[in-house]
Amino acid sequence: MAMTTSKSYYSLNGQPIADSLPLNILDDRGLSYGHGLFETILMHQSTLPLFDRHLSRLNRGSNALNIPIKSDLIYNYVQLFLDQLKGQSIVQGVVKVIITAGTGGRGYKSPDTIEPRVVCSYSNLPKDIADYRNQAINVRFCEHKLPINHPLAGIKHLNRLDQILARNEWTCDNYHEGLMSSQSGHLIEAVSGNVFIKTADRWITPCVDQAGVAGVMRSLMLEEIFPACNIPVSVSLITMSELAESESLLLCNSIKGLAKVGSIYNHGNQLFKSLPTDQQTLMLRRKLIELYPQYQ
Amino acid sequence: MAMTTSKSYYSLNGQPIADSLPLNILDDRGLSYGHGLFETILMHQSTLPLFDRHLSRLNRGSNALNIPIKSDLIYNYVQLFLDQLKGQSIVQGVVKVIITAGTGGRGYKSPDTIEPRVVCSYSNLPKDIADYRNQAINVRFCEHKLPINHPLAGIKHLNRLDQILARNEWTCDNYHEGLMSSQSGHLIEAVSGNVFIKTADRWITPCVDQAGVAGVMRSLMLEEIFPACNIPVSVSLITMSELAESESLLLCNSIKGLAKVGSIYNHGNQLFKSLPTDQQTLMLRRKLIELYPQYQ
Repeated sequence: MAMTTSKSYYSLNGQPIADSLPLNILDDRGLSYGHGLFETILMHQSTLPLFDRHLSRLNRGSNALNIPIKSDLIYNYVQLFLDQLKGQSIVQGVVKVIITAGTGGRGYKSPDTIEPRVVCSYSNLPKDIADYRNQAINVRFCEHKLPINHPLAGIKHLNRLDQILARNEWTCDNYHEGLMSSQSGHLIEAVSGNVFIKTADRWITPCVDQAGVAGVMRSLMLEEIFPACNIPVSVSLITMSELAESESLLLCNSIKGLAKVGSIYNHGNQLFKSLPTDQQTLMLRRKLIELYPQYQ
Repeated sequence: MAMTTSKSYYSLNGQPIADSLPLNILDDRGLSYGHGLFETILMHQSTLPLFDRHLSRLNRGSNALNIPIKSDLIYNYVQLFLDQLKGQSIVQGVVKVIITAGTGGRGYKSPDTIEPRVVCSYSNLPKDIADYRNQAINVRFCEHKLPINHPLAGIKHLNRLDQILARNEWTCDNYHEGLMSSQSGHLIEAVSGNVFIKTADRWITPCVDQAGVAGVMRSLMLEEIFPACNIPVSVSLITMSELAESESLLLCNSIKGLAKVGSIYNHGNQLFKSLPTDQQTLMLRRKLIELYPQYQ
């Protein structure tokens, strides 16, 4: 398997791009305004095991942003890109799909006919993936708060300055992730993933209809993994005092899988809370790996 | 003067780009996350009369987004672009400058060394510019609300989905602009410009430290035009009832200049309020044109 330089493979609307790009990419509404969506999808043995869930999120997002594009077309472009990678003996890693509203329009006004662009690119698996899956990781609170924005919440759109400000609050390697709360003071998500906490009587993951991203791994956990383990889970707001009293905290991300948090630090780097490993966490992890061995 | 197709001229980091682009634009943090800034600058007789104000906003924005770039460098790249346009006998229109955090980093984390990209592009003046300057225009309320986001407020960054959702609430030609309020219920700005209202004792423009963009024309009006007319103006929150009781509403935008609003409609297209033209509005407009004839 060729592990070449990260992201040296691209396609644009299903066509491999090897040397240069059309000029009007510089007027693309994705670059100009973030008028678009993206997905990062785990590739395992030349397949995308959770592709359906990614496609269905793209479908919700394209409706919300008024980008007319059919799931079939995205599916075809991405399959062509997988073939392109297979031709280079690349069978695992991360496939990123960006869908933009294309070039055109008058300022913020969309053109009468939107011609979406679909960009596929490839990168290697993240270097910290084994630690994320196998260690009890350290996380810290981010000072930057997620704004409340119901029409855009849940969608994986290209306006990600909140995540950039939050992720760049620390540069050391001590923390795998940052925890983000909303301006209403509730725990919402990690910078690059969703969260589940264990309370005395059940597990909870924050609702993401006011802020946050509705993660693909979050939906898999809610709809398949928790039910398969017979462990009760619900979607609800989580206050900071509920987090402080929680017995366990899990992070999840469709590339990296499931992580157990060992310690939470505040943004001054003082310890906020340590969490022991509980039996249900081990059950959930075993079940995930049993059903989706790509997360081993 | 050659009025060719809009935006057929580009430069990248000071170099004219005529045919194709480097591939790694597809990994640019501007496209991936909206990690960048932009300015649209009025070009008049081959000069950019308000360039200093645009540069100073870029400077504030690049500090906020941690994009290390010196104003001198931006200045030089844009001057080279003006020369490039002059070589094509293009001496007026709109110069757009996009500054991104370039390619690199691990996900949301910025690279250790950011190599910013500066893209310049050209477009013709907007078609509705004469109406904006000379008529009493119609505007409507947008249903989409601006989120509260103190660290990002005021900056002209590339995350503009709020403006896109707001601007695409109407498609007819009846309205020149939309009025946007924040989730706290205050009037903040127009979709592509700032606002000033006249109350019984003074003019007010909304503060933009929680939501909105700190417009270049807004700062010119506050710092030069109102004082030159000896008309009192202040920066403050504006409630909807203050708007309902206001005697005059002005919009401004550094490309189009100053517009007097004739009627405000709600988002169901019913008339909310009509406003007569007052003497101070005429004074302000005359003074602007006297000092900055490009807004004639």
